Amino acid sequence: MNLTATIVTIGDEILIGQIVNTNATYLSKELDSLGFKINEVVSVADTQEAIRNVLSRVNGTADLILLTGGLGPTKDDVTKKVFCDFFNDELVQNPEVLMHVTMLLENYYKRPISEVNKLQALVPSKAIVLKNRVGTAPGMLMKSGNTFFVCMPGVPYEMETIFQEELVPFVKENLVKEYNIHRTIMTYGVGESLLAEFLQEWEDGLPNDVSLAYLPSPGSVRLRLSVHGTDYDLLEKKIQDLVDLLPNEVLKYVVSFQDEGIDKNIAKQLLNLQKSISFAESFTGGVLTQLFASVPGASAYFNGGVVTYATQSKIDVLGIDETLICKEGVVSEAVAIEMARNAKRLFKSDFAVATTGNAGPTKGDLNVPLGTVFIGIATPEVVFAKEFNLGQPREKVVQEAVSKGLLMVYEEMLKNK
Amino acid sequence: MNLTATIVTIGDEILIGQIVNTNATYLSKELDSLGFKINEVVSVADTQEAIRNVLSRVNGTADLILLTGGLGPTKDDVTKKVFCDFFNDELVQNPEVLMHVTMLLENYYKRPISEVNKLQALVPSKAIVLKNRVGTAPGMLMKSGNTFFVCMPGVPYEMETIFQEELVPFVKENLVKEYNIHRTIMTYGVGESLLAEFLQEWEDGLPNDVSLAYLPSPGSVRLRLSVHGTDYDLLEKKIQDLVDLLPNEVLKYVVSFQDEGIDKNIAKQLLNLQKSISFAESFTGGVLTQLFASVPGASAYFNGGVVTYATQSKIDVLGIDETLICKEGVVSEAVAIEMARNAKRLFKSDFAVATTGNAGPTKGDLNVPLGTVFIGIATPEVVFAKEFNLGQPREKVVQEAVSKGLLMVYEEMLKNK
Repeated sequence: MNLTATIVTIGDEILIGQIVNTNATYLSKELDSLGFKINEVVSVADTQEAIRNVLSRVNGTADLILLTGGLGPTKDDVTKKVFCDFFNDELVQNPEVLMHVTMLLENYYKRPISEVNKLQALVPSKAIVLKNRVGTAPGMLMKSGNTFFVCMPGVPYEMETIFQEELVPFVKENLVKEYNIHRTIMTYGVGESLLAEFLQEWEDGLPNDVSLAYLPSPGSVRLRLSVHGTDYDLLEKKIQDLVDLLPNEVLKYVVSFQDEGIDKNIAKQLLNLQKSISFAESFTGGVLTQLFASVPGASAYFNGGVVTYATQSKIDVLGIDETLICKEGVVSEAVAIEMARNAKRLFKSDFAVATTGNAGPTKGDLNVPLGTVFIGIATPEVVFAKEFNLGQPREKVVQEAVSKGLLMVYEEMLKNK
Repeated sequence: MNLTATIVTIGDEILIGQIVNTNATYLSKELDSLGFKINEVVSVADTQEAIRNVLSRVNGTADLILLTGGLGPTKDDVTKKVFCDFFNDELVQNPEVLMHVTMLLENYYKRPISEVNKLQALVPSKAIVLKNRVGTAPGMLMKSGNTFFVCMPGVPYEMETIFQEELVPFVKENLVKEYNIHRTIMTYGVGESLLAEFLQEWEDGLPNDVSLAYLPSPGSVRLRLSVHGTDYDLLEKKIQDLVDLLPNEVLKYVVSFQDEGIDKNIAKQLLNLQKSISFAESFTGGVLTQLFASVPGASAYFNGGVVTYATQSKIDVLGIDETLICKEGVVSEAVAIEMARNAKRLFKSDFAVATTGNAGPTKGDLNVPLGTVFIGIATPEVVFAKEFNLGQPREKVVQEAVSKGLLMVYEEMLKNK
């Protein structure tokens, strides 16, 4: 039997779509890796009634129930009061939290504690306090029957800090250890339906306790195998045996046997080869660059990127010949090739990827149809570009071009081995 | 009385945290703007049992219930079957959908329809089909009592296309029109608690039907006023009257009276002034550049950006003097100033923002403490840089530096007026 968890995220800003609920994603992923089966993720309003109702409904349905949001010092934050009332408890001032809040304000904001801030030190008398090292609102843990309830603030880095530093050790000590094993196989360049046809026989032969999911996105499909149990090694072997049986017609589209985008494979390959990469982007607007820049330690293989959004910048910054642009058009094979070549030279990198295209939503003054893009690749051996017609909407064009650009440069790297 | 809606997103990839649930955000925002009160957003597994249970639980609790996910052609997608069974209906082949899928595959994928693809044309016999112009899985609408149920695929651009082209017209025709009015006031450079103190009297005087929320993030706090009703003009006036009463000590931190980041104000200001901007980024890794590049039409004021991640690229691409870097350190006021100056020159822009810093998570070989950053600003009149100590974690350092850089350049633009 799985340990189960339910995640409750509180806040009108989620229900009206003002923010993306990344806290839910973070907690889902972490709880899954701790071996929990997540029953549901639910978002409710930050009213006393909505919070009370959801607490009553989910009480007893899971081993662990996590709540986030509504713990701020302002009047719209009511979670703590409802949480406390739900357990018929009363709020008391916690001296350790008071000390922590006082120090944090003095050291970081350079001002004394206010009456509003002091409210942050109130916690239910029976709660275990989960220290918030990086903020003022502490986490709180209570038990009801066999269910642990945990309340955490909604500010992502505060919630993550409490979760990792306080809750993970508690869970490991107090709840039984089980495992969810997922293996995600990344394919590029093949559609979901065709993949399903190739896999039909293999899929029919999967054991009952192994589940398979297809996760399509523009340019790639992820296949995820999942299994749950108590013997880690046995579960790993079970999954590996199935992966080993994947048919050849599928394997040729696989770029990774882990849940990693092709960018991670490229990073590894660059480290192996002791080579570097750079980017020159137009309509992809820095998506490729940021994909590499957001990884700590990327400086070992990522030299940088340039977003030449204005045509004039392609001339000024990348040194593209103005007459070439006039003759061929800014969205052309020739310009994509020059962008890649010049990025490689400018950043002194071994590989470079360049994008130029008409992503829409309107045709603008470009002389190519909506969705037409060129991707340029420069390697130590060659420079070339390919044309793609990626249709619409803009979001799909950008995502699919990013996928294709990465796949193109990765294939060149494999030749380079 | 509000019209109410509930959003159900289906898929293990959400529950195990493999994807961020942006569909929920999109639908929440759109339903809110159509006048719905969203009761809850819930994510469940893609098993028949989980889908059946959630359908039973939410049935009758809202006027509109939207489901997304699990409509693909592969075996792990079971939503359509459960949806159909829930209404005691049977699946029948829809000739229009069959024709559409056939054409799409022939025109876009250049291959004939397969048996797996043909399954996409099956819909419950009593369903209203919502055409999916950009994909193979159609949307489906059913009525049970006073509740409308809608099933849509989980691929974001397919779901969005069906929602806008098919569902919005249906809702406008068949459900009464009411309004949610939100006004979000963006403040930069003041903490949540201090803001609450300044607002105490004003907040105590808010009418009962107006709600106020504080939404803090690193470097900025959003204040959101919300009200619901049937008379749009009256609601707008009610909110405006309250905004007009905001105390002066708060107004000085306000950069916008709409739910827009300061980047949108900068864009407007640049358009007004007919000036342009560019970026030179180090630890922010392209976040500033992408913020501007992702807006269609940005080419009128955004020239481009360069991410000089490697120190060598600061020398090669931005032309920073190597001896200056050796003398002052790569994270220094002098280097931030040169980066801004050179970005402005390179991209021929009127303004430029540059970032260099030690965002962590480890100190690396930099000679400054973790969290130390310098932000450089170049304008038609001046070039300068400021130092900030933004602590940790990395995510907060990047976000707060982006906020501060934008605020700094915006303040210079206002002087430039």
